[in-house]
Amino acid sequence: MSILSPTVELAKQLISRRSVTPDDAGCQELMIERLEAMDFHIERLQFEEVTNFWARRGTEGPLFCFAGHTDVVPSGPEEKWDYPPFEATIADGFLCGRGAADMKGGLAAFMTALERFIEHHPDHQGSIALLITSDEEGPFINGTTRVIDHLEARNEKIDWCIIGEPSSTEKVGDAIKNGRRGSISGDLIIRGVQGHVAYPHLVENPIHLAAPALNELATEHWDEGNEYFPPTSFQISNIHAGTGATNVVPGHIDVQFNFRFSTELTADQIKERTHEILNRYGLNYDIKWTLSGNPFITDKGDLVNACVESIRAITGQETELSTSGGTSDGRFIAPTGAQVVELGPINATIHKVNERVKVDDLDTLSSLYENILARLMVQK
Amino acid sequence: MSILSPTVELAKQLISRRSVTPDDAGCQELMIERLEAMDFHIERLQFEEVTNFWARRGTEGPLFCFAGHTDVVPSGPEEKWDYPPFEATIADGFLCGRGAADMKGGLAAFMTALERFIEHHPDHQGSIALLITSDEEGPFINGTTRVIDHLEARNEKIDWCIIGEPSSTEKVGDAIKNGRRGSISGDLIIRGVQGHVAYPHLVENPIHLAAPALNELATEHWDEGNEYFPPTSFQISNIHAGTGATNVVPGHIDVQFNFRFSTELTADQIKERTHEILNRYGLNYDIKWTLSGNPFITDKGDLVNACVESIRAITGQETELSTSGGTSDGRFIAPTGAQVVELGPINATIHKVNERVKVDDLDTLSSLYENILARLMVQK
Repeated sequence: MSILSPTVELAKQLISRRSVTPDDAGCQELMIERLEAMDFHIERLQFEEVTNFWARRGTEGPLFCFAGHTDVVPSGPEEKWDYPPFEATIADGFLCGRGAADMKGGLAAFMTALERFIEHHPDHQGSIALLITSDEEGPFINGTTRVIDHLEARNEKIDWCIIGEPSSTEKVGDAIKNGRRGSISGDLIIRGVQGHVAYPHLVENPIHLAAPALNELATEHWDEGNEYFPPTSFQISNIHAGTGATNVVPGHIDVQFNFRFSTELTADQIKERTHEILNRYGLNYDIKWTLSGNPFITDKGDLVNACVESIRAITGQETELSTSGGTSDGRFIAPTGAQVVELGPINATIHKVNERVKVDDLDTLSSLYENILARLMVQK
Repeated sequence: MSILSPTVELAKQLISRRSVTPDDAGCQELMIERLEAMDFHIERLQFEEVTNFWARRGTEGPLFCFAGHTDVVPSGPEEKWDYPPFEATIADGFLCGRGAADMKGGLAAFMTALERFIEHHPDHQGSIALLITSDEEGPFINGTTRVIDHLEARNEKIDWCIIGEPSSTEKVGDAIKNGRRGSISGDLIIRGVQGHVAYPHLVENPIHLAAPALNELATEHWDEGNEYFPPTSFQISNIHAGTGATNVVPGHIDVQFNFRFSTELTADQIKERTHEILNRYGLNYDIKWTLSGNPFITDKGDLVNACVESIRAITGQETELSTSGGTSDGRFIAPTGAQVVELGPINATIHKVNERVKVDDLDTLSSLYENILARLMVQK
């Protein structure tokens, strides 16, 4: 058996801990032990059932932070896996197991990058920190958002944040996420007057009342998007009305819809424009709104430039700046004013059976993180 | 206890027979016994589980027919009734029980009217017939429509038909039905392309595709109606789409709709115009059509005039000619070329608990039927 790199060795140790959300299963103590050896100051932050820590080396600015999570999603039926999900098997050049890509591989790559960097640059400028949670795959109530509140309360501000989420699509570094669309949903009920289809003058058919308004919402041009975001989109996901009987006009119609929105609009503007359209049709309605996250963007600047240049230097690729995909903990960090980028391994197998990552990719990723640290944290 | 009229006495005998569809429970044999006493020729017509009979007195034309049914809808929970539904209790001037209004009261009123009429006019002109089924409240497959087929097969044509359905609203004779709207329903499926709300360029939202087309169907001016019919109306009764998940655009939408249509349109014209609208929106769709009944009308003529004049003579009222309400067996009789009118007791309590009819109303109705027979079946 070949000798494993320190990155792969650490990734194996993390994967073999069965840390299904919110259980950390000792992963963080494993990291803390190595961080203490590098003179990091550790704050263990247990909020309810969620284990978090904040580690910082240095007291000056600028403050660079690596953010990540030790929790993983459940494996599903273990017999469907080619290799047991919590045994971190290496086969055919891949490290296989739950969390290999999302995101214990990224955690390991950053830890070893940090160890090499500090060995070469013990007197780096500014401060380096890690914000680690065990609640990223769960309800995200007692994880990153609570740690950020804790930092905000004492006015501790992150300048640059890399999140080790699997941002790459086909090759490590081919894409980084420098923002996300916002997401806001509505539960809409439109009321009419129920009755028998044979007596149309006695009913107000809520389906008929809804149709032109829904058509206008569906065809509305919400914005143009911008350099980083596609145009804001509106989609109705569910619509239901009717008693089941074919001769009864129902009393109300229920509609669920979702906006994915760009930084050209705020949630309040979306609400206002939706109400304006519905009001124009004189509808008797209510909407229950749920804001899942506001859009955020990290424009080209120190952090994005460091990532782009490191990726070019280490892998020879031009990286794509992307705002696609689902939500991440970046939505809690970006509003503090931090520059935030997600950069991590290939995301093809995350949340699936046989989650895996190329062994070589973890070493490449570790080199990338080290290179980025060198660009940002060493005085030129 | 006061002495009951022969009409009320017969209605009580019919109500006390528990003839829930398709069970006749001996009602028809009770009628047949009395019809045979009047020299009617009886044909018992059992089709599957449905008991029917055709009785005729005379061989010449014109042929007057009284049509009705001995079956009733279920009583529902008997404890909710003030009086047991199959005991035909008389209280406060009302005859109470299931079928009192729909339509054992009408059957009894016609039977006694007939007995008086034949006593006075044993040599009436033309022929008098009764078409009685036990399947009017059921699937109407083996009832009136089969009897009509039987008559058509031997070219026996009804000229005038009174159906004893409860046509009156506040006073006996205040309304007669001289036709009915048609009813046609559609099960519509409109197909799109399912996908995640976060990737709007990969989906074709069937709810969005449907909205403008449904709006056009709902606002289309189908016709103006005419002297007897209100404008044709379109109503969507049920609409369903969605997986339940708020982040998934569904693959299809299901819509159920119904037209109540006047004699200004045919079912084929309605289908054609519906398809024309849906096609114009380039939709991928299918419709399963169900025609419940074509519209029919009996214009002013011998039968309507006899009813109107008899009502004026007996009750002093001007009657309203109406085509409103649900379907009746008239839709099977009118297409043979017969003039068809529904005339019966007040319909306020039909199909409800505490179904009842005023005792006096049954006697009035019997006088009305007798007067109509005299106008139509006695040579002037």
